[in-house]
Amino acid sequence: MSWNTFGRVLRMTTWGESHGPALGAVLDGCPPGLSLAEGDIQPWLDARRPGQNKFTTQRQEPDPVRILSGTFEGQDGTQRTTGTPISLMIENVDQRSKDYSEVARAYRPGHADYAYDAKYGFRDYRGGGRSSARETAARVAAGAVARLVIPEVTIEAYVVEIGGDSIDRARFDAAEIANNPFWCPDPAAAARWAQAVDEARLAGSSLGAVVECVAQGVPAGWGAPIYAKLDADLAGAMMGINAVKGVEIGDGFTAARLSGEQNADPMRPGGGPPVFQANHAGGIAGGISTGQPVVLRVAFKPTSSILTPVETIDREGNATEIRTKGRHDPCVGIRGTPVVAAMMALVLADHKLLHRAQCG
Amino acid sequence: MSWNTFGRVLRMTTWGESHGPALGAVLDGCPPGLSLAEGDIQPWLDARRPGQNKFTTQRQEPDPVRILSGTFEGQDGTQRTTGTPISLMIENVDQRSKDYSEVARAYRPGHADYAYDAKYGFRDYRGGGRSSARETAARVAAGAVARLVIPEVTIEAYVVEIGGDSIDRARFDAAEIANNPFWCPDPAAAARWAQAVDEARLAGSSLGAVVECVAQGVPAGWGAPIYAKLDADLAGAMMGINAVKGVEIGDGFTAARLSGEQNADPMRPGGGPPVFQANHAGGIAGGISTGQPVVLRVAFKPTSSILTPVETIDREGNATEIRTKGRHDPCVGIRGTPVVAAMMALVLADHKLLHRAQCG
Amino acid sequence: MSWNTFGRVLRMTTWGESHGPALGAVLDGCPPGLSLAEGDIQPWLDARRPGQNKFTTQRQEPDPVRILSGTFEGQDGTQRTTGTPISLMIENVDQRSKDYSEVARAYRPGHADYAYDAKYGFRDYRGGGRSSARETAARVAAGAVARLVIPEVTIEAYVVEIGGDSIDRARFDAAEIANNPFWCPDPAAAARWAQAVDEARLAGSSLGAVVECVAQGVPAGWGAPIYAKLDADLAGAMMGINAVKGVEIGDGFTAARLSGEQNADPMRPGGGPPVFQANHAGGIAGGISTGQPVVLRVAFKPTSSILTPVETIDREGNATEIRTKGRHDPCVGIRGTPVVAAMMALVLADHKLLHRAQCG
Amino acid sequence: MSWNTFGRVLRMTTWGESHGPALGAVLDGCPPGLSLAEGDIQPWLDARRPGQNKFTTQRQEPDPVRILSGTFEGQDGTQRTTGTPISLMIENVDQRSKDYSEVARAYRPGHADYAYDAKYGFRDYRGGGRSSARETAARVAAGAVARLVIPEVTIEAYVVEIGGDSIDRARFDAAEIANNPFWCPDPAAAARWAQAVDEARLAGSSLGAVVECVAQGVPAGWGAPIYAKLDADLAGAMMGINAVKGVEIGDGFTAARLSGEQNADPMRPGGGPPVFQANHAGGIAGGISTGQPVVLRVAFKPTSSILTPVETIDREGNATEIRTKGRHDPCVGIRGTPVVAAMMALVLADHKLLHRAQCG
Repeated sequence: MSWNTFGRVLRMTTWGESHGPALGAVLDGCPPGLSLAEGDIQPWLDARRPGQNKFTTQRQEPDPVRILSGTFEGQDGTQRTTGTPISLMIENVDQRSKDYSEVARAYRPGHADYAYDAKYGFRDYRGGGRSSARETAARVAAGAVARLVIPEVTIEAYVVEIGGDSIDRARFDAAEIANNPFWCPDPAAAARWAQAVDEARLAGSSLGAVVECVAQGVPAGWGAPIYAKLDADLAGAMMGINAVKGVEIGDGFTAARLSGEQNADPMRPGGGPPVFQANHAGGIAGGISTGQPVVLRVAFKPTSSILTPVETIDREGNATEIRTKGRHDPCVGIRGTPVVAAMMALVLADHKLLHRAQCG
Repeated sequence: MSWNTFGRVLRMTTWGESHGPALGAVLDGCPPGLSLAEGDIQPWLDARRPGQNKFTTQRQEPDPVRILSGTFEGQDGTQRTTGTPISLMIENVDQRSKDYSEVARAYRPGHADYAYDAKYGFRDYRGGGRSSARETAARVAAGAVARLVIPEVTIEAYVVEIGGDSIDRARFDAAEIANNPFWCPDPAAAARWAQAVDEARLAGSSLGAVVECVAQGVPAGWGAPIYAKLDADLAGAMMGINAVKGVEIGDGFTAARLSGEQNADPMRPGGGPPVFQANHAGGIAGGISTGQPVVLRVAFKPTSSILTPVETIDREGNATEIRTKGRHDPCVGIRGTPVVAAMMALVLADHKLLHRAQCG
Repeated sequence: MSWNTFGRVLRMTTWGESHGPALGAVLDGCPPGLSLAEGDIQPWLDARRPGQNKFTTQRQEPDPVRILSGTFEGQDGTQRTTGTPISLMIENVDQRSKDYSEVARAYRPGHADYAYDAKYGFRDYRGGGRSSARETAARVAAGAVARLVIPEVTIEAYVVEIGGDSIDRARFDAAEIANNPFWCPDPAAAARWAQAVDEARLAGSSLGAVVECVAQGVPAGWGAPIYAKLDADLAGAMMGINAVKGVEIGDGFTAARLSGEQNADPMRPGGGPPVFQANHAGGIAGGISTGQPVVLRVAFKPTSSILTPVETIDREGNATEIRTKGRHDPCVGIRGTPVVAAMMALVLADHKLLHRAQCG
Repeated sequence: MSWNTFGRVLRMTTWGESHGPALGAVLDGCPPGLSLAEGDIQPWLDARRPGQNKFTTQRQEPDPVRILSGTFEGQDGTQRTTGTPISLMIENVDQRSKDYSEVARAYRPGHADYAYDAKYGFRDYRGGGRSSARETAARVAAGAVARLVIPEVTIEAYVVEIGGDSIDRARFDAAEIANNPFWCPDPAAAARWAQAVDEARLAGSSLGAVVECVAQGVPAGWGAPIYAKLDADLAGAMMGINAVKGVEIGDGFTAARLSGEQNADPMRPGGGPPVFQANHAGGIAGGISTGQPVVLRVAFKPTSSILTPVETIDREGNATEIRTKGRHDPCVGIRGTPVVAAMMALVLADHKLLHRAQCG
């Protein structure tokens, strides 16, 4: 893994800036023979797409994906992966020619503006350039292909907390997740969040969120200790998503407050694999999957772009202040949810192949 | 990074089992000309060493490290790194020939036993084999060398919570950290923890912990977005430590409960680099260091080895139960603290070199 | 380096099939601030472009390259690299809708047809798909950017032998290389080759070639022993070019016939770096550049596509024969020459950055 | 692959200097369950060992290998690989405390002395330090393990030319290879070489050699185009061996002198895989194995250490001359032969696992 490439044997390389002509991903190492057409990818991009309601940015990104390489029509007339790199491209169509002189002039606190200049001496300031969350569209597209590599696994990501207001676990209903603009499994919470997010939006403020992701069907044995542990790779993948500041596997920080007895996951015999009596571990032990559901949670900070002026400096180091006008998400965690699921898919698919390399 | 190698350009490969003849690390890519002798490494190993008081395992590991390659006497008579791989070896001297038939027979819940068997079909069950926390001695040794690569950085790790009992930030005193067996910066908390850990030890139970780590002196510009972000690499490094279940950068999960205004880190002009008015971000924006202190927290679960019998299965899948006799840490987070610092050093040193490769 | 990615810190990932909609390269790790526009790349692609005379395939590939990411207009109005991935795309415009049923049906000996089917169970047979030399356009485009990373180095590649007929070293004239369709530094040899290649073309036969490449200006110190030696990386890079079957550094196989005295490269003092009295080593010792010109030679086999029918088998394993109709190069080594130079540039640029990472 | 690590999924990291306390290899990614004890490795090291006759250096290296990790006693009492890193160590016992002041003072032409100083500013000059051929003992040890990963493959390396004097292919007898000190399959050539090498030895001169290596039993499908081609990886592996200056696959440079008709490898149906009528390609097409024997040849330059004084410079840049006293091989290609075979084993084993990762 290096720079703009993610993965060990199933490798995704992404490219593109927020306001360049296009962005994309090259997915390398994908097994041959998988049925793959643009229709397998587009729905996941549509789920991530902004501008669909007032709770996310109004930037319009139809985001039609094109497969430029790596598939060919098999004997049955189906487009299938050939084992060569799959190049996915999404053109940037809503590059509104707005005035970026403000962002070019001064650093937005909480954004990567200052850090990019400090590193590269230079940055594409239009819409955040490479540091824009727009880049995650490429991850979602590649993640859609990764899902095809692991048909035995079902991945679901959803929001469990916005602005400190949590769902009620007793009311968890997976069927509700796609029924509201918040990927919320608890309709009562969704209703409360609608009001809170709208208030933040109208006030030019923003809210944080916690996203949970569960992968069912992961067999025991994926993960390569010591430095390619499944949980370590997942943590790196999640922390690399824009605005993420925390990652937990299983009980996470709560586990630090349990005793050894409380935290145990006893095993009982089952017909085949063991039946675990609890899943504090989140499906991973010693960096290897145990056959239980893989469970993690991700903390998204509140969107850094707010209407309230914040003290900052300009490129010359002079004191100034900045407020971010324009189209932004009042709660980036919402649109981050499909990205969490995509990264889960990429990590699991990579580890499936990695396990196969060593253990046949 | 792959399997048992960690790092991108400064690469550590570790090897060895808990009860094999030795364990070690090969550190590759280290700059030449650094003064390095065994005395630069040993103190860090001594800090991690168990058996020093009743709060950690009584296993005796004098752990003298040997440098087998990669240094040579320079013209000034000092041993210096030559730029070739540095091989570090620690012999296992206290391999008590105890009876492992219990662990060989049945899987200890919370341990990697079942997962290793599921993956490899086979495992070295003596003391946990490769999955033992003993492996982290190799990381601490290599981390000591990594510190020499980043003399501009000071790293401090300490425990901020044991068994749900936190330090009082108002009483934080860095000078206290080395004065108690808990790496605790608050003497009052240290006194309470002494009692709690001892009770857990006597009861055959165990406690979790939260470790914080701060790196001072990291200049702005380290970290390589998108998939080699500094925070993502740190998260992967920390989640890969034995018993870790959660990682936070800066405010972490707390940030998810703040508004955008509360979470802002305003900037003011300084003589040289900008002066930040807060550090909610933990010193990293867009995956790149900002010049502020890098701050993270790590959640350790309670030690899985407890005296209370737990339901489990044996290798043939039959129901049984197991209780872990022998020498174990009642709170693994304590001995994990130097490992957190070592991994911080390895990640930062790697990113210093990585930054230099691309940006000169 | 893995699958479709080349390089260690300056990493090129290529994608695309001969007859897909496009092909391209993503170049990652490029230093920021380099002046880069499409005009810096296009001339190198034009040099490689087929269809320019009767000695190469008549396939028409105007090959206009597009930069899709990684550059931005600096304060001086110049497009400069930003340090983010540079995505280069070349659309396939002359995808003549010819009849591929013959190639789909039977394996062309000497081509990758059978090997791809054996590996992937499936292949894009149109024009060779991914195994087509068309893919090398992406390498030439990325190589053009790599040249900008090493402005201190001048790279020249030229043909020294076609069909066993060598140039006369006494008549070597670098100024002639671009003056004939064979990249030949000896006009007399060029005249003989014109006749030989034309005869092969008219007979539906093909010829092999030996290409030499010299890099001037490489400072002493590039190359990372033991397993990232400069010569080893160059050998891998060259052997990976389509139709290449041999690589020599310096005197190569001839060195195996010299005595130690004959093969020595004595050194004399110079004002600055030492002055070598010979360069049998080809500018590399112990895997590290010595400051002398880096010299290598590459053997290209004759094009496998010939009009003479060759015995083969079809996909079902039945005996058949095949002759390759259509537009093919009678001597692929000619068009391989710019590819050799591009790979030299990529390896040297990568090692410049790699050296900087470790040795500052 | 990076610096001192070789391989993609089966990864060997070597360490150690010629005159340090020990050298070794860590082999990571090895499949679990393979029967492995020191007796599986020692014979290969013994074959490489110097000091066995007057044709190789008289340095005495008993080279007993120790397995420090990665194996455990299985239920059948056999030591088996566990899937964790295999650490192999060889202690340096014959570190004759000779006078190295000469080598410390001046650069030996043809050796890596000057290049190491130019790169690192510093070098371990005792016996060549890390650049000594002694390092290849680690490769031979790891290669012995790699052979166990590919039981379906038989690898044989032998010398086909010394000092420009070739074997007679008509007299090729594989049974002779181990019967003479030159790994020579032609007894008549072996007799001539004995005289030539002895003359060179007595004259303080040296000779080059060409080594051929054939791998039988490689199935079709190994190799990962475009940048992990089997032939490219083999070329890099071979060129990275000390003193190697050229690599050919199949007909190599000779192929550049053949016509397309002469170079064809026609296929005929067989019971299972196709029956090739020739093997000009050396068993690889498009970077993927074809099922034919993999054949390559490697050119070793004459040993650079000779008794004749050669002009050179000292560390301060002053003119001087140097002659290499002490124990050296008059023809390093001879002892390089087992190293060629070891690297072939490592590359093939790596590609077997790599193929399994992607193609199941």
